[in-house]
Amino acid sequence: MESQKLQSTQTQTNFNVNKKIGLFTGSFDPMTMGHLDIIARASKLFDKLYVGVFDNPSKNYSFSVNERSALIKENLQEFKNVEIITHSSDLTVNVAKKFKVTALVRSVRSISDFDYEANMIYFNHEMTGVETILLVAKPELGMISSSRVKELVAYGVDISKYVPKNVAHKLKEKYVK
Amino acid sequence: MESQKLQSTQTQTNFNVNKKIGLFTGSFDPMTMGHLDIIARASKLFDKLYVGVFDNPSKNYSFSVNERSALIKENLQEFKNVEIITHSSDLTVNVAKKFKVTALVRSVRSISDFDYEANMIYFNHEMTGVETILLVAKPELGMISSSRVKELVAYGVDISKYVPKNVAHKLKEKYVK
Amino acid sequence: MESQKLQSTQTQTNFNVNKKIGLFTGSFDPMTMGHLDIIARASKLFDKLYVGVFDNPSKNYSFSVNERSALIKENLQEFKNVEIITHSSDLTVNVAKKFKVTALVRSVRSISDFDYEANMIYFNHEMTGVETILLVAKPELGMISSSRVKELVAYGVDISKYVPKNVAHKLKEKYVK
Amino acid sequence: MESQKLQSTQTQTNFNVNKKIGLFTGSFDPMTMGHLDIIARASKLFDKLYVGVFDNPSKNYSFSVNERSALIKENLQEFKNVEIITHSSDLTVNVAKKFKVTALVRSVRSISDFDYEANMIYFNHEMTGVETILLVAKPELGMISSSRVKELVAYGVDISKYVPKNVAHKLKEKYVK
Amino acid sequence: MESQKLQSTQTQTNFNVNKKIGLFTGSFDPMTMGHLDIIARASKLFDKLYVGVFDNPSKNYSFSVNERSALIKENLQEFKNVEIITHSSDLTVNVAKKFKVTALVRSVRSISDFDYEANMIYFNHEMTGVETILLVAKPELGMISSSRVKELVAYGVDISKYVPKNVAHKLKEKYVK
Amino acid sequence: MESQKLQSTQTQTNFNVNKKIGLFTGSFDPMTMGHLDIIARASKLFDKLYVGVFDNPSKNYSFSVNERSALIKENLQEFKNVEIITHSSDLTVNVAKKFKVTALVRSVRSISDFDYEANMIYFNHEMTGVETILLVAKPELGMISSSRVKELVAYGVDISKYVPKNVAHKLKEKYVK
Repeated sequence: MESQKLQSTQTQTNFNVNKKIGLFTGSFDPMTMGHLDIIARASKLFDKLYVGVFDNPSKNYSFSVNERSALIKENLQEFKNVEIITHSSDLTVNVAKKFKVTALVRSVRSISDFDYEANMIYFNHEMTGVETILLVAKPELGMISSSRVKELVAYGVDISKYVPKNVAHKLKEKYVK
Repeated sequence: MESQKLQSTQTQTNFNVNKKIGLFTGSFDPMTMGHLDIIARASKLFDKLYVGVFDNPSKNYSFSVNERSALIKENLQEFKNVEIITHSSDLTVNVAKKFKVTALVRSVRSISDFDYEANMIYFNHEMTGVETILLVAKPELGMISSSRVKELVAYGVDISKYVPKNVAHKLKEKYVK
Repeated sequence: MESQKLQSTQTQTNFNVNKKIGLFTGSFDPMTMGHLDIIARASKLFDKLYVGVFDNPSKNYSFSVNERSALIKENLQEFKNVEIITHSSDLTVNVAKKFKVTALVRSVRSISDFDYEANMIYFNHEMTGVETILLVAKPELGMISSSRVKELVAYGVDISKYVPKNVAHKLKEKYVK
Repeated sequence: MESQKLQSTQTQTNFNVNKKIGLFTGSFDPMTMGHLDIIARASKLFDKLYVGVFDNPSKNYSFSVNERSALIKENLQEFKNVEIITHSSDLTVNVAKKFKVTALVRSVRSISDFDYEANMIYFNHEMTGVETILLVAKPELGMISSSRVKELVAYGVDISKYVPKNVAHKLKEKYVK
Repeated sequence: MESQKLQSTQTQTNFNVNKKIGLFTGSFDPMTMGHLDIIARASKLFDKLYVGVFDNPSKNYSFSVNERSALIKENLQEFKNVEIITHSSDLTVNVAKKFKVTALVRSVRSISDFDYEANMIYFNHEMTGVETILLVAKPELGMISSSRVKELVAYGVDISKYVPKNVAHKLKEKYVK
Repeated sequence: MESQKLQSTQTQTNFNVNKKIGLFTGSFDPMTMGHLDIIARASKLFDKLYVGVFDNPSKNYSFSVNERSALIKENLQEFKNVEIITHSSDLTVNVAKKFKVTALVRSVRSISDFDYEANMIYFNHEMTGVETILLVAKPELGMISSSRVKELVAYGVDISKYVPKNVAHKLKEKYVK
């Protein structure tokens, strides 16, 4: 068996014994199936994954930070190592330092996201040495965004395919009279 | 044992207790400072990182698989959780399954690498469910490639800035009479 | 003769007998030579082409919807199968359904338009099954946009090369004192 | 007869009464689900759609032109207005002229296809005035290519999801002993 | 010696005797190391280089045009052929004509800058025939922008690496209490 | 003499008195209107412009280096400060050093050329400190390449629009029986 062979041929010091901690931040206004997929995938890459919900005072959100966090939380039952945190008026990298984060997690949906992400990754690393990993969105999820979903629901389009059930319910409550 | 230590300090359910294992594959013909940087960064993201040196029989390498592996190995002293493996005539994803890999590691140097990587990531995931993380090359290393380095050394250019010391030595031995 | 051979060797049912109807939408604030070229080309692809002039109440147009429509209309003499429609506060796809549109027509000027268009195409299709065709702008027209033209005329630049005659006249009337 | 029917329901001048004829060319070595989707979509845009199977003497195909054509034909039952033609040693635009084609059909899978297509479109139009329409591949099909499919089948991967049934059968016959 | 050989083998008329004059424009709000690098490089390409500081009345600058010009000027000691000019409410190309500019100088940091620049270059040339040269930012400077630097300093990040000394001083004065 | 004339009208320190020398290299197999446009534009940016015709022994050219040079030379009558040089088996940057070149000139036709050019620019600068300027090809010339032109002429297409007269003549002589 592979893992046994590994144990027998090398000492325990060949393992990096620090806990691996990830941080996936965003507005999640509201969470989409794209976000949920990244959370599911990232939760397997780290011992612990924080989902950081931004609450930037200068931004107009459609849902309050509590609503946004609750909508995410209700979808995390099967991801035991995921925890939601909220933060406002602070750089992501400072949150990362506070939570001893191993790496930030970012999703890339298309080539046009890439330059922006590369720039953020560079400065986040320059400022605090924090690492960032990119996960490429699945093709069928790469088209979705929170803003598109809200636009669609406002026009009466069925968006149940693009967001978790509880988000679809909340959106209809808010946008469909 | 690591996972036990984790269990003692907090409830098991909040942690994903599987070992995190990464696999970074390539030809490494020869290794550059760009490769070394990715190895250094990826070694911190996983409990164990395999560096997989391809030996594709239909490809013409400048250095034998043993030479390429040795050049890497000599640069891994400080990365205790990194191990070199070689593989030939097999899909990366099959190697990944055999070594119970959590995620493949790929480096993206520029936007023009992106479509190719997104395609590989998709098929690797479709075939075996294996995850892939992208690390964006540092700006000052994003220009380097093994082929460019060999081209430069053939023209007598000093390449000591782009490759580890032992590789520079080997390249001069081979290309500069 | 080719067409005769086709007639002799197969039955009429080998032809798709539905009328082909296209819809090319935009603000046309005001129409440019780029728009006119797309209309001319699209009019040959469909039995009927609708040019849909948006009148979004939340947008500030330089010209009223009537002015914008009139400026287009005066350039359509030779395109007998093109008809102008205006629409406000509705999704393009709903307009498409109402007019039994076979396909939406979009122009792509450069690679940076592509991701945006691919996203719109995806959602338009998801919502109503409507097809979209892309026409690549001719190189010499790919640089023009309504906003650039207005900017230039405001600086006193001769824009007669970038817009139809009547538009040039109207722009000078409005922007040049 | 179609054009007469149109004449009866509205004035002839409002309709472009020429038959709309499309041409979708490629190597189809072999056909994938991506090709089939484009054929299905394009067949609705034109009164008649030709699928042009290239047989370039200087190219090494995995399947003969007859095999490639047969594999496509078996999937065209529901597309009554689609006809397969083969051509060798001739420019696509010459084939287009011979068959009185209204527009060439091209599929764009990703942004990296775009510059190549724009260049071909330009020269095809310059040479013969032929129009080209681009259809954007569906996200879940945009990753597939004939060459990738052959690569996968050679490694024993199940490719039934990426190609029509008859192609999957033929591929296994050829590549899996 | 090369230059002697050139002098002996051809007449003076083989030289284009007009002075070469460059113009590098921007907001410089404030100047970064990226700007300084372009100035240093461009100053070697022209007999005379103008640095044009925009003062667009409709824009909110963090620093006044005098402050912005002074911050640049203090860094130009070693560039004897560089002169600062300011301009407001006028097209760059008109400034270029007034100063008999041979070519505008633009910096490209990443592929996403390219389409925008190509469009500006086209219209600037169409309007006045003025040429534009692009200089590619050095990898390690390609991430920097004035707006990013201000954002960082507001969060207390040390930005001394990204801007000249006098700018770092001024920024701290303004943003750090 | 130019530099003296400059001295009389303003203080010498305000001018960079070195001759500005450009080098535009390529295979020119054969020269196109795109090449000619870049030469015309670059000749105005420099006191002296060298056109460097590559003669790489490992490459198969359609025309000999003498033919390629002659075809260019016949089009340079009005560009008094342009001189053709040929070089083989040497890095462009070494040629640049030998001719005391101020800057290499490169043409960018589309966004897909950009990453490649950025990489070459970086290494050329790293190796010898040589500068490179990019000129964006005019939209109507950005589609042309030597290889496309040869492909077209082989199919009997009139290419007189894409190449200078003497090149069109030579191409027909060679490719059209």
